[in-house]
Amino acid sequence: MKIREIAEFLKGEVSGDPEVEIYGFSSLEDAKKGDISFVAEGKYVKLAEKSEAACLIVPSDVKIEGKNLIKVKDPYLSFIKAIEKFFPQEFYFPPGKNFFVSPSASIGEGTVMGEFSFVGENTRIGKNVKIGSLVYIGKNVEIGDGSIIYPRVSILDGTIIGRNVIIHSGTVIGSDGFGYIKRKKWIKIPQRGKVVIEDDVEIGANVTIDRGTFGETRIKKGTKIDNLVHIAHNVLVEENSIIVAQVGIAGSARIGKNVIIAGQAGIGDHTIIEDGAVIYGKAGVFGRVKKGEHISGFPPMPHRKWLRVASLLRRLPEIVERIRGNPEE
Amino acid sequence: MKIREIAEFLKGEVSGDPEVEIYGFSSLEDAKKGDISFVAEGKYVKLAEKSEAACLIVPSDVKIEGKNLIKVKDPYLSFIKAIEKFFPQEFYFPPGKNFFVSPSASIGEGTVMGEFSFVGENTRIGKNVKIGSLVYIGKNVEIGDGSIIYPRVSILDGTIIGRNVIIHSGTVIGSDGFGYIKRKKWIKIPQRGKVVIEDDVEIGANVTIDRGTFGETRIKKGTKIDNLVHIAHNVLVEENSIIVAQVGIAGSARIGKNVIIAGQAGIGDHTIIEDGAVIYGKAGVFGRVKKGEHISGFPPMPHRKWLRVASLLRRLPEIVERIRGNPEE
Amino acid sequence: MKIREIAEFLKGEVSGDPEVEIYGFSSLEDAKKGDISFVAEGKYVKLAEKSEAACLIVPSDVKIEGKNLIKVKDPYLSFIKAIEKFFPQEFYFPPGKNFFVSPSASIGEGTVMGEFSFVGENTRIGKNVKIGSLVYIGKNVEIGDGSIIYPRVSILDGTIIGRNVIIHSGTVIGSDGFGYIKRKKWIKIPQRGKVVIEDDVEIGANVTIDRGTFGETRIKKGTKIDNLVHIAHNVLVEENSIIVAQVGIAGSARIGKNVIIAGQAGIGDHTIIEDGAVIYGKAGVFGRVKKGEHISGFPPMPHRKWLRVASLLRRLPEIVERIRGNPEE
Repeated sequence: MKIREIAEFLKGEVSGDPEVEIYGFSSLEDAKKGDISFVAEGKYVKLAEKSEAACLIVPSDVKIEGKNLIKVKDPYLSFIKAIEKFFPQEFYFPPGKNFFVSPSASIGEGTVMGEFSFVGENTRIGKNVKIGSLVYIGKNVEIGDGSIIYPRVSILDGTIIGRNVIIHSGTVIGSDGFGYIKRKKWIKIPQRGKVVIEDDVEIGANVTIDRGTFGETRIKKGTKIDNLVHIAHNVLVEENSIIVAQVGIAGSARIGKNVIIAGQAGIGDHTIIEDGAVIYGKAGVFGRVKKGEHISGFPPMPHRKWLRVASLLRRLPEIVERIRGNPEE
Repeated sequence: MKIREIAEFLKGEVSGDPEVEIYGFSSLEDAKKGDISFVAEGKYVKLAEKSEAACLIVPSDVKIEGKNLIKVKDPYLSFIKAIEKFFPQEFYFPPGKNFFVSPSASIGEGTVMGEFSFVGENTRIGKNVKIGSLVYIGKNVEIGDGSIIYPRVSILDGTIIGRNVIIHSGTVIGSDGFGYIKRKKWIKIPQRGKVVIEDDVEIGANVTIDRGTFGETRIKKGTKIDNLVHIAHNVLVEENSIIVAQVGIAGSARIGKNVIIAGQAGIGDHTIIEDGAVIYGKAGVFGRVKKGEHISGFPPMPHRKWLRVASLLRRLPEIVERIRGNPEE
Repeated sequence: MKIREIAEFLKGEVSGDPEVEIYGFSSLEDAKKGDISFVAEGKYVKLAEKSEAACLIVPSDVKIEGKNLIKVKDPYLSFIKAIEKFFPQEFYFPPGKNFFVSPSASIGEGTVMGEFSFVGENTRIGKNVKIGSLVYIGKNVEIGDGSIIYPRVSILDGTIIGRNVIIHSGTVIGSDGFGYIKRKKWIKIPQRGKVVIEDDVEIGANVTIDRGTFGETRIKKGTKIDNLVHIAHNVLVEENSIIVAQVGIAGSARIGKNVIIAGQAGIGDHTIIEDGAVIYGKAGVFGRVKKGEHISGFPPMPHRKWLRVASLLRRLPEIVERIRGNPEE
């Protein structure tokens, strides 16, 4: 399509030749002739000048000599919208022929069942759901309209999944929580609760989310979870939080809204992380993190302090030596 | 059922009205009218007084005004027994119609094979085993009576699994160990050993346990393993140990009896952890941990010392400043 | 077979009785009568003297009294070659009867498709590929000759896999990268790139490798990846690197040739690790690691320095106390 068509769709203003044809899209660095790309902020203008892109979506106040531009308010968001409109691509969910759906289960209109997939008793799957191949869905499960379950996912008994949820391959939702009491040997505490995943949540590959012991484990609306994350029984994650790869959240922790937990961080059991907090990568957090706090390290501490502690740690041999006034053996 | 019936089963003494009907069970905090719950220790009495539970299982010496009580010696254990007796619930293992069992394999009486599951040559599966859907079991595998294999598990060639073992979804038992020797490129060391999982072991979701290089990787009786744990080739875990989520245990490590390894800890190769040791979350341990020691941190150190080191670390900028007698730049 | 035959195959020199029969192989410690084993270096001679092995493959200059020896230049490599020659054992890849291959897909000569496996549109699988049971392969995938895909693996749309690649059970290749932009809620950035796995790569169990956002995620020739590793979108791992279990590599990181990243280490986004660097276990690395550097800890620092810092940390309470001249409260 032409730059003009994209600009019309984005309600943007063209600077340059609106009749140039666009054949693909790319990041600024990788852009080839015929690609559309974008400049999120003024600071990328230098990079943009060297780009081979045929057209750049830019902030309204940015000028780049000799380039065809579409000026918009929010270039990154406009770029995403343009890709989805002009280069739509859906993951491949071929309808299977050989799959099992329990007679008591219901499957909504437009829903695709993948090959070798299984749906158990009394499970209700909404409309336009995409279920990949080799998926296991137990009994008494609910899956809302428009959700996407990639191949090789397990959704165990009683799990409730909202609308427009995306679950990537290899993930297990509703495994037993890890709970025992010690007598002569470890006695298993029955794990009878469930998992609730609200609308618009996305869950990465090979994640595990355990069911509640008696109550529920709940991931609220709009939260996004990366690969290989572990979420234990009775955890609550509030809306629009971000949980990066390999994070572990122990039992009964409460994670607020708009929280970010970076890769490989660990959250202790019964920990409370208030809204808007940021937990940096590899941090080990327990107790309570207050609203909007930024926490790093293990032991955990405010991120700014951690930066100073980290700097001192790296110089610790020199510091100790200097203070002692003689070489540290 | 009535409080009286539960008390009879538990051999407990009723204080209050034994004719009250019980409809469900719950934790103390979440208990609704009609629920039974429990008070593990005297310190929860305050919480119990506010609980809406219709009946509380309590230690023999605890009194709670205005509540129906069942007095027993071990309230938590009694509560678990009561749930299992009066609210039995089994995970859903529907017998499949379309699965593959090799002609040379044997399947015991009462064993359920799930839909789209596979059992290879010369594999012997005991009685009353539950095998979920989409499970892969290779050749020369043995699985003991009463074990439960959740959907989407891999049990690879030669693995030996005892009785009453539980393996959760997504787990892989018997993958190759990670062993190479460096010449011009990395040469794979053949991984020809096996995995042995003894009776009463429970293994969480998306765990990986590698086969021995030549010998075996063994998890002994009663040990419990949480989600996303990695156990490398030739590891030995003795009886009744607890390994929490995202722990990694490197090759040839030896973990004693009654050891607890908390979340995200790492155990170096050939490390020996003696009986009863406790490794705290995120610790990185190598060498040898002696009987009953409590170890934290990385570098690892006795937990009590770590608490002091952690406290000093958090104040490191102030300490350095004060010692120097001038502000740390 | 006899020692003589093995020696001939290895072009080694026999010292002792070449007519002794060999029935098995083992590590030095576990060797039973009739086993062949090896001595990698002179320092294991003491251990070798006590070994029950019927024959030892040893370095040319090593003498062990009373043992049958095969003297070679590279005993470990020779031992591996002898195992593969005289005790060949292939993982069990039984040809399935009930699997799905899209009509537009092509499967090379000698390739085995496992039971309940799926191959999507336009996918091209080479010759002598082994595909286990319950494997999902999407559309437009390529898999080169001689590769081995263990049961229960997902290879998603557009993934390119080279020759003689090994992928262990539970692994997911080509899941979406974790990318969102924050507006009122998190907006998903389309993940339209792919994953390329070059020849001779081995990937462990329950690993996740995300597709590129627009470009690619690439693992180059000969690199070996252990279990439960996470590799994010747009990462490049160069040739012959080693990535140990539970490592996480964040988006757009560049890992050089012959790099070793030990267990549970984390590599920050856009980090560059130059050729030959070694990242120790549990390290958290960001920025740039120079050629051949050895890095430990978090904050990351040269390994030698970390050893000193670690030693000081363990003595921190005593050091602070002594410097202050009074007991630290």
